[in-house]
Amino acid sequence: MISTNNYFDGNVKSLGYTTKAGKSTLGVMNAGDYEFGTSTHETMIVIEGEMNVKLPGASEWTIYKAGETYQIEANTTFQVKVSEQTSYLCQYK
Amino acid sequence: MISTNNYFDGNVKSLGYTTKAGKSTLGVMNAGDYEFGTSTHETMIVIEGEMNVKLPGASEWTIYKAGETYQIEANTTFQVKVSEQTSYLCQYK
Repeated sequence: MISTNNYFDGNVKSLGYTTKAGKSTLGVMNAGDYEFGTSTHETMIVIEGEMNVKLPGASEWTIYKAGETYQIEANTTFQVKVSEQTSYLCQYK
Repeated sequence: MISTNNYFDGNVKSLGYTTKAGKSTLGVMNAGDYEFGTSTHETMIVIEGEMNVKLPGASEWTIYKAGETYQIEANTTFQVKVSEQTSYLCQYK
Protein backbone atom coordinates (compact mmCIF):
# COMPACT_ATOMS: atom_id res chain seq x y z
CA MET A 1 0.00 0.00 0.00
CA ILE A 2 1.13 3.52 -0.76
CA SER A 3 -0.12 5.96 1.87
CA THR A 4 -0.97 9.57 1.02
CA ASN A 5 -0.40 12.15 3.76
CA ASN A 6 -1.35 15.83 3.94
CA TYR A 7 0.02 18.28 6.52
CA PHE A 8 -0.24 22.03 7.10
CA ASP A 9 -3.46 22.45 5.07
CA GLY A 10 -1.97 20.59 2.09
CA ASN A 11 1.22 22.66 2.02
CA VAL A 12 3.21 19.50 2.73
CA LYS A 13 2.21 16.21 1.07
CA SER A 14 3.94 12.87 1.21
CA LEU A 15 3.71 9.27 -0.03
CA GLY A 16 4.62 6.48 2.39
CA TYR A 17 6.05 3.11 1.35
CA THR A 18 8.35 0.32 2.50
CA THR A 19 11.46 -1.19 0.92
CA LYS A 20 13.93 -3.82 2.13
CA ALA A 21 15.75 -0.91 3.80
CA GLY A 22 12.69 0.04 5.90
CA LYS A 23 9.96 2.65 5.86
CA SER A 24 10.28 5.87 3.85
CA THR A 25 8.25 8.84 2.75
CA LEU A 26 8.71 10.97 -0.35
CA GLY A 27 7.39 14.46 0.15
CA VAL A 28 6.96 17.94 -1.27
CA MET A 29 6.74 21.21 0.69
CA ASN A 30 5.33 24.46 -0.62
CA ALA A 31 7.22 27.66 0.25
CA GLY A 32 6.69 28.30 3.96
CA ASP A 33 7.88 27.77 7.54
CA TYR A 34 7.21 24.44 9.23
CA GLU A 35 7.86 22.66 12.51
CA PHE A 36 7.96 18.86 12.35
CA GLY A 37 7.99 16.35 15.18
CA THR A 38 9.73 12.97 15.06
CA SER A 39 8.73 9.70 16.71
CA THR A 40 11.72 7.74 15.34
CA HIS A 41 15.17 8.67 14.07
CA GLU A 42 14.84 10.24 10.60
CA THR A 43 17.29 10.69 7.76
CA MET A 44 16.21 13.53 5.45
CA ILE A 45 17.60 13.80 1.93
CA VAL A 46 16.79 16.88 -0.17
CA ILE A 47 15.79 15.83 -3.70
CA GLU A 48 15.05 19.15 -5.46
CA GLY A 49 14.99 22.71 -4.13
CA GLU A 50 16.61 23.52 -0.78
CA MET A 51 15.72 23.57 2.91
CA ASN A 52 16.85 25.98 5.60
CA VAL A 53 16.84 23.85 8.76
CA LYS A 54 17.13 24.51 12.49
CA LEU A 55 17.96 21.17 14.06
CA PRO A 56 16.97 20.32 17.65
CA GLY A 57 19.25 22.18 20.06
CA ALA A 58 20.94 24.12 17.25
CA SER A 59 21.26 27.89 17.60
CA GLU A 60 21.79 28.45 13.89
CA TRP A 61 20.02 27.63 10.65
CA THR A 62 21.77 25.47 8.01
CA ILE A 63 20.92 25.28 4.31
CA TYR A 64 20.67 21.81 2.76
CA LYS A 65 20.62 21.65 -1.03
CA ALA A 66 19.59 18.91 -3.45
CA GLY A 67 21.47 15.71 -2.65
CA GLU A 68 22.39 16.80 0.88
CA THR A 69 21.30 14.88 3.98
CA TYR A 70 20.59 15.62 7.62
CA GLN A 71 19.64 13.47 10.60
CA ILE A 72 17.07 14.07 13.33
CA GLU A 73 16.82 12.08 16.53
CA ALA A 74 13.56 10.48 17.72
CA ASN A 75 11.03 12.35 19.85
CA THR A 76 12.08 15.88 19.06
CA THR A 77 11.08 18.78 16.82
CA PHE A 78 12.91 20.65 14.09
CA GLN A 79 12.12 23.69 11.97
CA VAL A 80 12.28 24.00 8.20
CA LYS A 81 11.93 27.04 5.91
CA VAL A 82 11.64 26.66 2.15
CA SER A 83 11.43 29.46 -0.39
CA GLU A 84 10.27 27.38 -3.38
CA GLN A 85 8.63 23.97 -3.76
CA THR A 86 11.14 21.49 -2.35
CA SER A 87 11.08 17.69 -2.43
CA TYR A 88 12.64 15.22 -0.04
CA LEU A 89 13.09 11.59 0.88
CA CYS A 90 12.66 10.78 4.58
CA GLN A 91 13.97 7.40 5.74
CA TYR A 92 12.82 6.22 9.16
CA LYS A 93 16.12 4.84 10.34
CA MET B 1 0.15 23.74 -5.46
CA ILE B 2 1.20 20.14 -4.97
CA SER B 3 -0.84 17.83 -7.20
CA THR B 4 -1.68 14.28 -6.14
CA ASN B 5 -2.01 11.69 -8.90
CA ASN B 6 -3.21 8.08 -8.83
CA TYR B 7 -2.70 5.57 -11.63
CA PHE B 8 -3.36 1.84 -12.10
CA ASP B 9 -6.01 1.66 -9.34
CA GLY B 10 -3.70 3.36 -6.83
CA ASN B 11 -0.75 1.07 -7.53
CA VAL B 12 1.23 4.10 -8.74
CA LYS B 13 0.89 7.43 -6.92
CA SER B 14 2.76 10.65 -7.49
CA LEU B 15 3.10 14.24 -6.28
CA GLY B 16 3.58 16.97 -8.86
CA TYR B 17 5.46 20.22 -8.24
CA THR B 18 7.59 22.86 -9.95
CA THR B 19 11.09 24.14 -9.20
CA LYS B 20 13.37 26.58 -11.00
CA ALA B 21 14.50 23.56 -13.05
CA GLY B 22 10.96 22.85 -14.30
CA LYS B 23 8.13 20.44 -13.57
CA SER B 24 8.74 17.20 -11.68
CA THR B 25 6.83 14.37 -10.10
CA LEU B 26 7.89 12.19 -7.19
CA GLY B 27 6.24 8.79 -7.31
CA VAL B 28 5.95 5.35 -5.79
CA MET B 29 5.02 2.11 -7.60
CA ASN B 30 3.75 -1.05 -5.96
CA ALA B 31 5.15 -4.35 -7.24
CA GLY B 32 3.67 -4.91 -10.70
CA ASP B 33 3.97 -4.45 -14.46
CA TYR B 34 3.14 -1.07 -15.97
CA GLU B 35 3.07 0.68 -19.32
CA PHE B 36 3.48 4.47 -19.24
CA GLY B 37 2.98 6.99 -22.01
CA THR B 38 4.92 10.24 -22.36
CA SER B 39 3.79 13.58 -23.75
CA THR B 40 7.14 15.32 -23.17
CA HIS B 41 10.73 14.13 -22.76
CA GLU B 42 11.16 12.56 -19.31
CA THR B 43 14.21 11.93 -17.15
CA MET B 44 13.52 9.15 -14.63
CA ILE B 45 15.72 8.76 -11.54
CA VAL B 46 15.24 5.72 -9.29
CA ILE B 47 15.22 6.80 -5.63
CA GLU B 48 14.71 3.53 -3.71
CA GLY B 49 14.07 0.00 -4.96
CA GLU B 50 14.75 -0.90 -8.60
CA MET B 51 12.98 -0.87 -11.95
CA ASN B 52 13.23 -3.32 -14.82
CA VAL B 53 12.59 -1.17 -17.89
CA LYS B 54 11.91 -1.81 -21.57
CA LEU B 55 12.57 1.47 -23.34
CA PRO B 56 10.79 2.42 -26.58
CA GLY B 57 12.27 0.43 -29.44
CA ALA B 58 14.45 -1.66 -27.13
CA SER B 59 14.40 -5.42 -27.52
CA GLU B 60 15.79 -6.06 -24.03
CA TRP B 61 14.94 -5.14 -20.46
CA THR B 62 17.42 -3.13 -18.37
CA ILE B 63 17.53 -2.91 -14.57
CA TYR B 64 17.91 0.56 -13.06
CA LYS B 65 18.81 0.69 -9.36
CA ALA B 66 18.61 3.47 -6.78
CA GLY B 67 20.46 6.54 -8.06
CA GLU B 68 20.39 5.41 -11.69
CA THR B 69 18.72 7.44 -14.45
CA TYR B 70 17.08 6.78 -17.79
CA GLN B 71 15.57 9.01 -20.45
CA ILE B 72 12.37 8.62 -22.47
CA GLU B 73 11.48 10.65 -25.53
CA ALA B 74 8.16 12.48 -25.90
CA ASN B 75 5.04 10.81 -27.33
CA THR B 76 6.02 7.20 -26.79
CA THR B 77 5.40 4.36 -24.34
CA PHE B 78 7.72 2.35 -22.12
CA GLN B 79 7.25 -0.64 -19.84
CA VAL B 80 8.33 -0.99 -16.22
CA LYS B 81 8.32 -4.02 -13.90
CA VAL B 82 9.02 -3.65 -10.19
CA SER B 83 9.23 -6.46 -7.65
CA GLU B 84 8.99 -4.32 -4.47
CA GLN B 85 7.75 -0.80 -3.73
CA THR B 86 10.00 1.50 -5.75
CA SER B 87 10.22 5.28 -5.68
CA TYR B 88 11.31 7.66 -8.40
CA LEU B 89 11.78 11.27 -9.44
CA CYS B 90 10.51 12.15 -12.93
CA GLN B 91 11.73 15.43 -14.42
CA TYR B 92 9.86 16.72 -17.45
CA LYS B 93 12.85 17.85 -19.43
